[in-house]
Parts: sequence; structure tokens; C-alpha cells
Amino acid sequence: DYDPSFKIGKEKAKVCMTCHGEDGISTIDPYPNLRGQKVGYLISALKDYQSRQRTSGLAILMQQQADTLSEQDMKDISYYYSVLGTKQEEE
Amino acid sequence: DYDPSFKIGKEKAKVCMTCHGEDGISTIDPYPNLRGQKVGYLISALKDYQSRQRTSGLAILMQQQADTLSEQDMKDISYYYSVLGTKQEEE
Repeated sequence: DYDPSFKIGKEKAKVCMTCHGEDGISTIDPYPNLRGQKVGYLISALKDYQSRQRTSGLAILMQQQADTLSEQDMKDISYYYSVLGTKQEEE
Repeated sequence: DYDPSFKIGKEKAKVCMTCHGEDGISTIDPYPNLRGQKVGYLISALKDYQSRQRTSGLAILMQQQADTLSEQDMKDISYYYSVLGTKQEEE
């Protein structure tokens, strides 16, 4: 089944891939894998960075990223990663 | 190869399994999967909860959990989840 949300999310997620990997497996150990992660968790994590409820040294990078995202962007990107690598995925 | 660190981590991780799943796939959408996650990320996330650098509504539950853990506990639990479901895993 064609899933336009997946395509939209993938396009918006390009900026994430340098650190979190093209396949959602992150490129370095301090950064989390996002592949197949729960969509609700990903959305709330992004919101927490944007609202400065995550504040450690590494969080500053993600605060800056989250500042550029609308609520719809967060949903689309989170949906993309939640589906990536699961049964629902399609290319 | 026998890996005692995996066994130690699994024992300490029992308290995590109610929410994050026996297999590291979380039981509800707001909670993250931990299976195969990067060990460095998991350790820093636990430290951030303990040091109150993650402060949102859902973070409060994890702050309380992290308060009960030593630095060695955090390393052991993080190692366990990082290996779970990967090639390195053994039962």
C-alpha cells in the first residue's frame, strides 16, 4: 500500500541522517538509533528539546534542530523513523 | 563466548522490563524501545535523568528510577540493552 506520510517524513528527515544514519542506525555511539522507535516517544523527545526540557551538553545540538521544526514536521519525521525497518515499511 | 556482563546487566534490568518490555520493545507508545540501542546514548540518558537534565512530565518517572542506580548499574543495564537483539547476543 502506498503511504504518502512515509515519503513526506523521509524527505523532512534528511537533515537527521548525518548523525542518526541513513538507515536510522546512528553513526556514533553517543547518538541514539531511531529506526523502529515508538512514534509517541519520538514526538515527545523532539518537543522536550524544543521546550528546553532536555538540557545536557549533547542536548544543545538537538535543541537547535528542534527549533527549526513545526509540530507537523515532528509528527512526520517521527512517523518515518517509527516505520523504518518494520513490516509497514515500503520503499 | 560467555559474556558475564550481559548476565549481570540482564539481572539489573529486570526493573526496566515492565515498561520497556522483556525483549526491549516497550509496552506502550510513549516509552522508547531500548533493544539494540547505542550503549553511550543509554548511559548518558540515564545520567541526564539522574542529574535532572530531563525534566518533562514523563521524565519524572525515569528520574525516580535513575536515582536508585549507581554509575556501574547504569553501565551494566545500558550494555545489556545495547547487546540485546544483536549479533553479540547470547542466552
